[in-house]
Amino acid sequence: MKIRPLADRVVIKKFEAEEKTASGIVLPTAAKEQPQMAEVIEVGPGGMVDGNEVKMEVKVGDKVIFSKYAGNEIKADGENYIILRQSDILAIVEL
Amino acid sequence: MKIRPLADRVVIKKFEAEEKTASGIVLPTAAKEQPQMAEVIEVGPGGMVDGNEVKMEVKVGDKVIFSKYAGNEIKADGENYIILRQSDILAIVEL
Amino acid sequence: MKIRPLADRVVIKKFEAEEKTASGIVLPTAAKEQPQMAEVIEVGPGGMVDGNEVKMEVKVGDKVIFSKYAGNEIKADGENYIILRQSDILAIVEL
Amino acid sequence: MKIRPLADRVVIKKFEAEEKTASGIVLPTAAKEQPQMAEVIEVGPGGMVDGNEVKMEVKVGDKVIFSKYAGNEIKADGENYIILRQSDILAIVEL
Amino acid sequence: MKIRPLADRVVIKKFEAEEKTASGIVLPTAAKEQPQMAEVIEVGPGGMVDGNEVKMEVKVGDKVIFSKYAGNEIKADGENYIILRQSDILAIVEL
Amino acid sequence: MKIRPLADRVVIKKFEAEEKTASGIVLPTAAKEQPQMAEVIEVGPGGMVDGNEVKMEVKVGDKVIFSKYAGNEIKADGENYIILRQSDILAIVEL
Amino acid sequence: MKIRPLADRVVIKKFEAEEKTASGIVLPTAAKEQPQMAEVIEVGPGGMVDGNEVKMEVKVGDKVIFSKYAGNEIKADGENYIILRQSDILAIVEL
Repeated sequence: MKIRPLADRVVIKKFEAEEKTASGIVLPTAAKEQPQMAEVIEVGPGGMVDGNEVKMEVKVGDKVIFSKYAGNEIKADGENYIILRQSDILAIVEL
Repeated sequence: MKIRPLADRVVIKKFEAEEKTASGIVLPTAAKEQPQMAEVIEVGPGGMVDGNEVKMEVKVGDKVIFSKYAGNEIKADGENYIILRQSDILAIVEL
Repeated sequence: MKIRPLADRVVIKKFEAEEKTASGIVLPTAAKEQPQMAEVIEVGPGGMVDGNEVKMEVKVGDKVIFSKYAGNEIKADGENYIILRQSDILAIVEL
Repeated sequence: MKIRPLADRVVIKKFEAEEKTASGIVLPTAAKEQPQMAEVIEVGPGGMVDGNEVKMEVKVGDKVIFSKYAGNEIKADGENYIILRQSDILAIVEL
Repeated sequence: MKIRPLADRVVIKKFEAEEKTASGIVLPTAAKEQPQMAEVIEVGPGGMVDGNEVKMEVKVGDKVIFSKYAGNEIKADGENYIILRQSDILAIVEL
Repeated sequence: MKIRPLADRVVIKKFEAEEKTASGIVLPTAAKEQPQMAEVIEVGPGGMVDGNEVKMEVKVGDKVIFSKYAGNEIKADGENYIILRQSDILAIVEL
Repeated sequence: MKIRPLADRVVIKKFEAEEKTASGIVLPTAAKEQPQMAEVIEVGPGGMVDGNEVKMEVKVGDKVIFSKYAGNEIKADGENYIILRQSDILAIVEL
């Protein structure tokens, strides 16, 4: 199944939260920090959005930091993804 | 009965929620996940919307992911449909 | 009495809710579904609305689906009408 | 005293609510329907409003239907008037 | 002390509420109607406001009706004034 | 330490509230009126703000009336300042 | 790890709150004032943001005052950063 986002939307996949803290203690799910980093899976074509020309700046494979709570969570082929607007992507991370 | 959406509106029909989970247990309605996928049934002509030119990117028969709670539910010929703006369609899915 | 809507406004008259369900039981008013279909009675001239040119797409006699709660209810010559903006009309229905 | 509304504003005077129902019963004030019809008393010059050119479409003496709760009530020479924007006038009525 | 309002702002001074009703009864302060009429004391130069050119239509000495609650109350030389935008002035009154 | 405000922002320093009322009674802090007058300390360069060209109209040393609650309070070198947008300055006062 | 902010975004690092007050008393964390000063770590390329051209005015190494609560906190390489829009930076400070 392939998801083709429309307009300025981007499909991302969140990085798994680390299972352990620095001290090696395994945390129960609720105590884990909400991850805010993700990999870009699909990128929309950009174009006119609300009357403004949007040029896509991220590309498939980019590691990105995104605005918590932004976008819509979807499930496809048993995996969780987020579809959000490029403007909800704050930065590209070079590891 | 034929529904011709105006402007940038699209008529979609939600996919039925799966009646069973992976383990084969039949779930009561309230426990089922709200489906967010639909098929495009009718597409408006696009044109000027709030002063911006909107070009329709989806077409009849497309499988789409749409923004939960977006649009208006209507019933026609005993079937349930949703009329929403194209901007509430997040992505086209190729199965 | 003739009502001439201004700008992009349209006067519509709601279809009566069906008095009986499929099984033939007459429902008390509160249990009836709020009808969302109506006939167009009068159409404004369109023109500049909030700085955007609006072209009227509906015409007198059209059967339309409109956004629930949109517009203002008025009573004229003992009949109930709704005055709403064309942008609150979702679709034209061909029966 | 003469009131000259600014920009796209219009001074209207509400029609008196009918003192009796069809059956001839005099209703106490609270039970009377809030009238939504009025006569245009003064019309502003129009012109640039929030960066958009507004052309006045109503004229003194027009009978109009206006949006309930819109505008500001004022009292002048012992009479009650409403000053509202032309965009809060829904339609002109020809009796 | 002279107050020079910026942009499309206007300094006004409210008319005193009448101390007596028509029947000659002196009302305690809380029962008096909030006055909505004022005299224009100073007028800003107009010009670009939020990207729109604003031309000042009121002048010093004008009697105006203004939108209740609009603007900021200030005290200068022991007198109370209101500074508001011209768009909060509804009409000019000719007594 | 020098504060250089960006865009259409202005650094102001509030006038101290008078320690005594006219009758010479010293008021506890909570009873004192919130001062709304200030002196301009630094002025930003203006320029494009949200797509609109902003020209700075206030200059260092101006006595101004500003919108209560507007802007951000900061502390620098033991002094309290407010940084606000020029549009939150209502008027220039000539004492 | 390098963070490249998109559009008009800026990565900043807050200055540590002073551990002692003027009198030399060490304050518990909750009583310390929320610092509002930061150093600019990375600067986005600017460009079209919501249809407006944004030119970046801050540069890496600038000491800035920023709007409390603005932006998103992130953690990278064990350090806390904030990513915010340049418009949430109030001023550049020259120490």
